[in-house]
Amino acid sequence: MKFKLLLSCPDRPGIVAEVSQLIAHSGGNVVAAAQFTDPISHHFFMRYEVEVQGTTEAETKLRAILEEGLAELLSGPEASLVMCSSEFRPRVALMASKASHCLVDVLQRWRTRELPCDIVCVIANHPHIEEYAGWFKVPFHHVDFSSQDKALAFDEVDALLDRYDVDLTVLARFMQVFPDHLVQKRAGHMINIHHSFLPSFMGARPYEQAHKRGVKLVGATCHYVTTDLDQGPIIDQEVTRISHRDTPADLRMKGRMSEKEALARGLRLHLEDRVFVRGNRTVIFD
Amino acid sequence: MKFKLLLSCPDRPGIVAEVSQLIAHSGGNVVAAAQFTDPISHHFFMRYEVEVQGTTEAETKLRAILEEGLAELLSGPEASLVMCSSEFRPRVALMASKASHCLVDVLQRWRTRELPCDIVCVIANHPHIEEYAGWFKVPFHHVDFSSQDKALAFDEVDALLDRYDVDLTVLARFMQVFPDHLVQKRAGHMINIHHSFLPSFMGARPYEQAHKRGVKLVGATCHYVTTDLDQGPIIDQEVTRISHRDTPADLRMKGRMSEKEALARGLRLHLEDRVFVRGNRTVIFD
Amino acid sequence: MKFKLLLSCPDRPGIVAEVSQLIAHSGGNVVAAAQFTDPISHHFFMRYEVEVQGTTEAETKLRAILEEGLAELLSGPEASLVMCSSEFRPRVALMASKASHCLVDVLQRWRTRELPCDIVCVIANHPHIEEYAGWFKVPFHHVDFSSQDKALAFDEVDALLDRYDVDLTVLARFMQVFPDHLVQKRAGHMINIHHSFLPSFMGARPYEQAHKRGVKLVGATCHYVTTDLDQGPIIDQEVTRISHRDTPADLRMKGRMSEKEALARGLRLHLEDRVFVRGNRTVIFD
Amino acid sequence: MKFKLLLSCPDRPGIVAEVSQLIAHSGGNVVAAAQFTDPISHHFFMRYEVEVQGTTEAETKLRAILEEGLAELLSGPEASLVMCSSEFRPRVALMASKASHCLVDVLQRWRTRELPCDIVCVIANHPHIEEYAGWFKVPFHHVDFSSQDKALAFDEVDALLDRYDVDLTVLARFMQVFPDHLVQKRAGHMINIHHSFLPSFMGARPYEQAHKRGVKLVGATCHYVTTDLDQGPIIDQEVTRISHRDTPADLRMKGRMSEKEALARGLRLHLEDRVFVRGNRTVIFD
Repeated sequence: MKFKLLLSCPDRPGIVAEVSQLIAHSGGNVVAAAQFTDPISHHFFMRYEVEVQGTTEAETKLRAILEEGLAELLSGPEASLVMCSSEFRPRVALMASKASHCLVDVLQRWRTRELPCDIVCVIANHPHIEEYAGWFKVPFHHVDFSSQDKALAFDEVDALLDRYDVDLTVLARFMQVFPDHLVQKRAGHMINIHHSFLPSFMGARPYEQAHKRGVKLVGATCHYVTTDLDQGPIIDQEVTRISHRDTPADLRMKGRMSEKEALARGLRLHLEDRVFVRGNRTVIFD
Repeated sequence: MKFKLLLSCPDRPGIVAEVSQLIAHSGGNVVAAAQFTDPISHHFFMRYEVEVQGTTEAETKLRAILEEGLAELLSGPEASLVMCSSEFRPRVALMASKASHCLVDVLQRWRTRELPCDIVCVIANHPHIEEYAGWFKVPFHHVDFSSQDKALAFDEVDALLDRYDVDLTVLARFMQVFPDHLVQKRAGHMINIHHSFLPSFMGARPYEQAHKRGVKLVGATCHYVTTDLDQGPIIDQEVTRISHRDTPADLRMKGRMSEKEALARGLRLHLEDRVFVRGNRTVIFD
Repeated sequence: MKFKLLLSCPDRPGIVAEVSQLIAHSGGNVVAAAQFTDPISHHFFMRYEVEVQGTTEAETKLRAILEEGLAELLSGPEASLVMCSSEFRPRVALMASKASHCLVDVLQRWRTRELPCDIVCVIANHPHIEEYAGWFKVPFHHVDFSSQDKALAFDEVDALLDRYDVDLTVLARFMQVFPDHLVQKRAGHMINIHHSFLPSFMGARPYEQAHKRGVKLVGATCHYVTTDLDQGPIIDQEVTRISHRDTPADLRMKGRMSEKEALARGLRLHLEDRVFVRGNRTVIFD
Repeated sequence: MKFKLLLSCPDRPGIVAEVSQLIAHSGGNVVAAAQFTDPISHHFFMRYEVEVQGTTEAETKLRAILEEGLAELLSGPEASLVMCSSEFRPRVALMASKASHCLVDVLQRWRTRELPCDIVCVIANHPHIEEYAGWFKVPFHHVDFSSQDKALAFDEVDALLDRYDVDLTVLARFMQVFPDHLVQKRAGHMINIHHSFLPSFMGARPYEQAHKRGVKLVGATCHYVTTDLDQGPIIDQEVTRISHRDTPADLRMKGRMSEKEALARGLRLHLEDRVFVRGNRTVIFD
């Protein structure tokens, strides 16, 4: 079987050798490796894909060996070791509002096996989204944000995410702002697509802002959701060339491709455990 | 001979026909035409390239015919008609500070006939720029910004621009902020290259800002200088993909290509009279 | 009402004035205009969007006026004048084989009003495509290419295209090669998306070819179908960066975005009557 | 001191652990690591940057240890181990013909420390190139290809490359085709920039070919020179969007940016020892 190992800790000599040795001694074989030491913070990041003979037992054993062998390295406050089986498929919830292009794109990519996950539900504050979920035979839930208090609506959303035991929540153009306590509860497990090239045009109606400013490229940004609106760590960005002829409506249409592409790439990087977050920056081993 | 005609005015039916007729009756032939009506402001923009038989006289005559024929159209406060001979070569001053990549790129493109202008002088606040000006046999002037008052230094710059009878001033990574009265004096005739994807990272040290924010693309913006720093009308923008491995120094290096390309394209569009400015937006007929 | 006027003929002085005058005298207003004279062939191309007061009658009258007024211009063998109402919605047939990404992308864009046409049927040589057509409530026809003679299968396709009175046939990754007589029958009315950056990797399995050659970008090309396979006039192209890590299967996946984008843009340009074909080149007024 | 280690061999379990251990036991610290196993050929590629305490002696010792420790791994016909000090600066010759843009771009980047090498000479078959070499104070040699036999001219070139003890020859738009025996003599040490998106438009006048075919993007390809003209392993490629308005001369101008960028990036990757060549493909650790 195969698993992924993600190690992040302050740098010091010999880490690669230690980890490699522990794996080799346990009979594991490194089939993909990437590492990076940030020259400014001197923080070390490592991602290995390892093959071991045998079943889950072999993995459990190797995990114990690594945790013991790297105990000193991992004792620091900023160190972390994550191991996950390549067979693990994260349970993903998609959330949408009125626009359907990102939602349908993610669902179609998932259906054609581009995205290694299980999409377990679609939640939207607009009922017409149900039809799209139906195409892909994914359970749908409408949460009413217009005729009830937003806090109550978000309680409903939270209960659904809990009920479906969701590992990752993808805001595929979901236009309501999550309350801080729910963002914190799912920190690192909630991805958003923002329809601008951040940090330009944060907040509402970015295409209108872009049109007003007269930029010559519009963009989209896939990022982790944090309590600072549109300021979370960026996973991927994409841009599209536009012209003076484009109205805000044209920008919305032309920008869709960037949104779909940035979201799909960012989502895939996350699902393949290729993203480290440190502070407001991401380290990405693609 | 050939000339360019740029007309901008509130839209109403029949403008194209009127202008075309006036030109045809004067014996002119339209060899290139572009027009655009802004669907929001209902403002009309038109750019024609016209061939007329004969010499400057023919052009003068046609100009008179057009001004008379279009008198009513041009009487509004927001209307303008510009005609310029295709043989006219704007006199351009290049200004630089420490970095030389944009300066050398513009000079080399000019030398290889990519830019229809006469580069008449190079002005810099760092004396080592003289060597580069020398390569291209362009007069160089060092203006000292470190040991004298900035206002005095800018007076020197202004006097030089006057002395060389400059039509266009290009800030090719010139790092001093022009005082408002000089910006106003040369409004529409001063182009800057800013080393970020505006409106992201206005002001100083944009690559450091970009690194800190953790963006995945860095950019450059060629724009007209206005009294609002880095907020003038945008002519062109370009971006370059980066990664977490890139330090601010790497961004500076990788961003150079975008800076050179956005500046060269923006400059060329301006020199070929393809840019209309209206408010904070540009209309570009490329 | 509004219509589009497309004129193509050998260049000579005064064309713009003549056409503009005829339109103005008929009470039409030019709301968008673009023209181009090829400096090599001296061929002239013009696209106008014209508004006229009144109903179809007004358009018929204007058409007669233009045809009469431009009779001499249009008498040449290479001249053509096309006028079409902006209300006209072309009837489009989509054809697919096994892959569904281009098909679903076109259908979803159509549904969200990005594409000004009526998609009247989906035809595929793989029956599972029916489900996708069903999502969008578009009639589906399976044509069997595996257990009958190809010529017979194409007769079936042709009969369907006739029956649906199709204006444009879009090969959205349809993997069968149309026989020459059907290509000629629908010349200029059949668009294909080829999954390579033509002229690189013509013919079968372009992603395998690209992988073997070790290119660093893969592409897609939207073009008119001609009897020379993959050599028709190109409408649009798009590329995606890849790396040595990508297998042919990865290229197939990464290339989908370029295919979808190039096809959608090319299709939209055609549907908006923005494309002129001359020889093996296109003139595009976007 | 710091050095780079490049290992390429058939894959088998444990390689990373073995190499890491040998380095750790010798007191080396891995500061950057990348590896890749080709899933098709099962060939393994590894690039390490290693820091060792002490002088050249330490490196020599480590090299001996690695060669002994990896003896079995390296005994195969397709295995190779290369170690080079990070202080080593390759000696580079630039060759040009008439066009100067790539030459000046490489020289200027080198001058501003983007390229870790020593440019030791410029060789051209057009004498006007001397001026550019002079700007950067690099020795220049004109080799006459017009009034003598090409074989003799290439003998002269070869003698110059030998005399300057050149590690890498960069054909910066050098338009003469090297004879096979000289290509073989410098296999893997000669880089060319071809002004098309290979494999499109191999051979002469690619911009004319591109114009004729009516493509919508033009490109440039940086590749190793092999005896098959324009078919060597590709290091990097770049493209630029064009339109029907562009003449072949416009394509030449617009394509320059792609040529400069692809050459500079490819050259830098080679100089930093980030490129493995295997068959006709490259593995690039950037």
